[in-house]
Amino acid sequence: MNIPNSDLPRVVIVGGGFAGISMAKKLKHLPVQLVMFDKHNYHTFQPLLYQVSTSGLEPDSIAYPLRKIMKNHKDFYFRLAEVEKIHSETNTITTSIGVLSYDYLIIATGTKTNYFGNEEIEHNAMPMKTIPQALNIRSLILQNFEKASITNDDEYRKALLNFVLVGAGPTGVELAGALAELKRNVLQRDYPDLNLADMQIHLLEGVDRVLPPMSKTASAKADKFLRDLGVHIHLNTIVTKYDGLNVETKDGLHLKAHTFIWSAGVTGNPVVGVTENALHEKVRRYIVDQYNRVQGYENIFAIGDIALMMSEEYPKGHPQVAQPAIQQGENLGENFKRLLKNQPLKPFVYKDKGSMATIGRNKAVADIKKLRFGGFFAWFIWMFVHLFSLVGFRNRVIVFFNWMYSYINFDKAARLIIRPFSVKKKEVEPEPEL
Amino acid sequence: MNIPNSDLPRVVIVGGGFAGISMAKKLKHLPVQLVMFDKHNYHTFQPLLYQVSTSGLEPDSIAYPLRKIMKNHKDFYFRLAEVEKIHSETNTITTSIGVLSYDYLIIATGTKTNYFGNEEIEHNAMPMKTIPQALNIRSLILQNFEKASITNDDEYRKALLNFVLVGAGPTGVELAGALAELKRNVLQRDYPDLNLADMQIHLLEGVDRVLPPMSKTASAKADKFLRDLGVHIHLNTIVTKYDGLNVETKDGLHLKAHTFIWSAGVTGNPVVGVTENALHEKVRRYIVDQYNRVQGYENIFAIGDIALMMSEEYPKGHPQVAQPAIQQGENLGENFKRLLKNQPLKPFVYKDKGSMATIGRNKAVADIKKLRFGGFFAWFIWMFVHLFSLVGFRNRVIVFFNWMYSYINFDKAARLIIRPFSVKKKEVEPEPEL
Repeated sequence: MNIPNSDLPRVVIVGGGFAGISMAKKLKHLPVQLVMFDKHNYHTFQPLLYQVSTSGLEPDSIAYPLRKIMKNHKDFYFRLAEVEKIHSETNTITTSIGVLSYDYLIIATGTKTNYFGNEEIEHNAMPMKTIPQALNIRSLILQNFEKASITNDDEYRKALLNFVLVGAGPTGVELAGALAELKRNVLQRDYPDLNLADMQIHLLEGVDRVLPPMSKTASAKADKFLRDLGVHIHLNTIVTKYDGLNVETKDGLHLKAHTFIWSAGVTGNPVVGVTENALHEKVRRYIVDQYNRVQGYENIFAIGDIALMMSEEYPKGHPQVAQPAIQQGENLGENFKRLLKNQPLKPFVYKDKGSMATIGRNKAVADIKKLRFGGFFAWFIWMFVHLFSLVGFRNRVIVFFNWMYSYINFDKAARLIIRPFSVKKKEVEPEPEL
Repeated sequence: MNIPNSDLPRVVIVGGGFAGISMAKKLKHLPVQLVMFDKHNYHTFQPLLYQVSTSGLEPDSIAYPLRKIMKNHKDFYFRLAEVEKIHSETNTITTSIGVLSYDYLIIATGTKTNYFGNEEIEHNAMPMKTIPQALNIRSLILQNFEKASITNDDEYRKALLNFVLVGAGPTGVELAGALAELKRNVLQRDYPDLNLADMQIHLLEGVDRVLPPMSKTASAKADKFLRDLGVHIHLNTIVTKYDGLNVETKDGLHLKAHTFIWSAGVTGNPVVGVTENALHEKVRRYIVDQYNRVQGYENIFAIGDIALMMSEEYPKGHPQVAQPAIQQGENLGENFKRLLKNQPLKPFVYKDKGSMATIGRNKAVADIKKLRFGGFFAWFIWMFVHLFSLVGFRNRVIVFFNWMYSYINFDKAARLIIRPFSVKKKEVEPEPEL
């Protein structure tokens, strides 16, 4: 790989998500050579992916070129490639574009969709973890509307307009709310010849409440907001089968749907080559110490969703959301200053800033410190927190303008079928060819 | 096809380009049932496609949902489908989703890329007539930058960074200018390990000047602007071969390039079924009278690029650009009022508002009436004319903001490889599956 040898220690970061970029930013003025690998040439602001899926935003407002984030780093190399294997004994990695040695390796590969071993579901469901996947969902929704408007077959039309979302975590809840608004505001105006009542949104959740990671107050409020918007919520419901049309559950619920979106869980996305001892078998996360050092290694670290830092307060590790990833990236970045000077490292302490989910227009829920609230105020805070978390001034302005526009006009502007999604030749995410 | 029978006459418009939507808008308050067919669910503002190709704009700012344009029409049906054949004897059409009868048929199918029968070039070149094609070019450019940054092979790297554009009409000229700015502003910052001088932009034109449809003054100015930006211009140059790497011309010029964009010409995109007499064999446009009625038919009309209205002033028909299309659509729409009242129709008279092309920052050329000017003032007018020609307030604001942002920051924000373009499995435009 044509990365020049340097006298400086080479720090290799695998993954340009929240953890990876927070850490990389902290290394800016340090005497290191920084190499970052990612399968995409952009960072994705995942919390707003559901708005790309539902025609509210275009990708460029939630994505940010990784090269641009690091443009002022002196000794920085970005490589669009997949890291395939770690050889810790020789301090090298094998990637899709060649072999590279490292002095320090930072694994920030995050999670992937968890189908719990159900291959049929994996094959037929739509995941929503990346921008291409979100665009596939957008195309599929709009194509199904178009198909529904040309068929005379009632049963087929209803299946086309049936949207089944599995998993009522923040992603499922936010997506259900956005779909309900799409139905109410856009479908009615764009498809006057369709019967609105034919469109149904079903949200299926395995446990006994929506938003299980949040407080019971938040769950109850979100539940009410969703039902008010016409979403059918099915709790304690485990999906067992989806063949592309028929959804079946353990309790005998049967739905027919052409859109089946899976956000029922994630699992770690580790890299081959780190000893099995360091990988928690069930959750597939690397067990790290309080400095994010992978168990059993001196110079391999893991940060973000892929790291499992167990403590008294968090016996199962930190929640797999943006905040712990950002904070771990920053802490490890700061620790590198100390590491290079042989000073003692600072243990990671998670500052829980709370959690929020939005259901729709003026409707959100928030758990912040001891406060539990919902409605307009939560929605307002949700908006500003997300706006200011976006990378880059331009993206903030574009998102803000789109939100204002949608709010005033009850509209979603990006309802364009640009890359028709083909169920037959399903390729959920196109691979780069290098 | 499930379009209800109506007592009102059914007007079928094939194509939602400039001509189709201008006409449709005029029919809003008329007692007709309006049916529109298009292969996309959106209208494309083609003059700014080159900015999508070069990471300046996202598709949603130059595309507009067709259903939304007609949302206040009472008896309007949009169908995402291809019209395959016209049966004028029975007043019906066959489409990809069934058969439909019409009272009036309006053909507004525009043009398609003309490869002049060279199948090898057709197979290997990148066209730029639609949004998916423009996104393919965007991906290809950025992928080639990424590939160039990982290779140690000098010759391969130079071919990756060689951009050959064929045809120096407005599309080729604007694209060449935008690429030159991408090189100067973005490449340098994003790829510090690449040698800028390795990137070359070649603009090949068959006749003796760039912008052949414009004045000689405009051509000379555009030529200078392009050369100042470092574009290599090859005039009187006819491309004979492109095999995916080697470009060859009649005069023996040989270039090696992985990006080869073809905007050397267009040809009509007629629908099967109208008599050969009505179709001009060479340019594949329908010969129409001064009311846009297709020769030999009473109730079939053609408007826009597909219509060939020969007059003393325009013996070869009107130029195939936006203005004649918009004006013909409007005139025919107005004429429908008269037609329905059995009043005499108004012949079409083209008001030439002039032509313009932009080369880059502060650089454009304009021919307006007797005036020929170039530079900052032309660029300023170009910007405002294009902004106000966009469909919809939201698109204007988004484009305006993006332009201001790019202008101030010397940046192109949408440099994201979202759908990697695969040369091997080349599918220039994905087909909708209905």
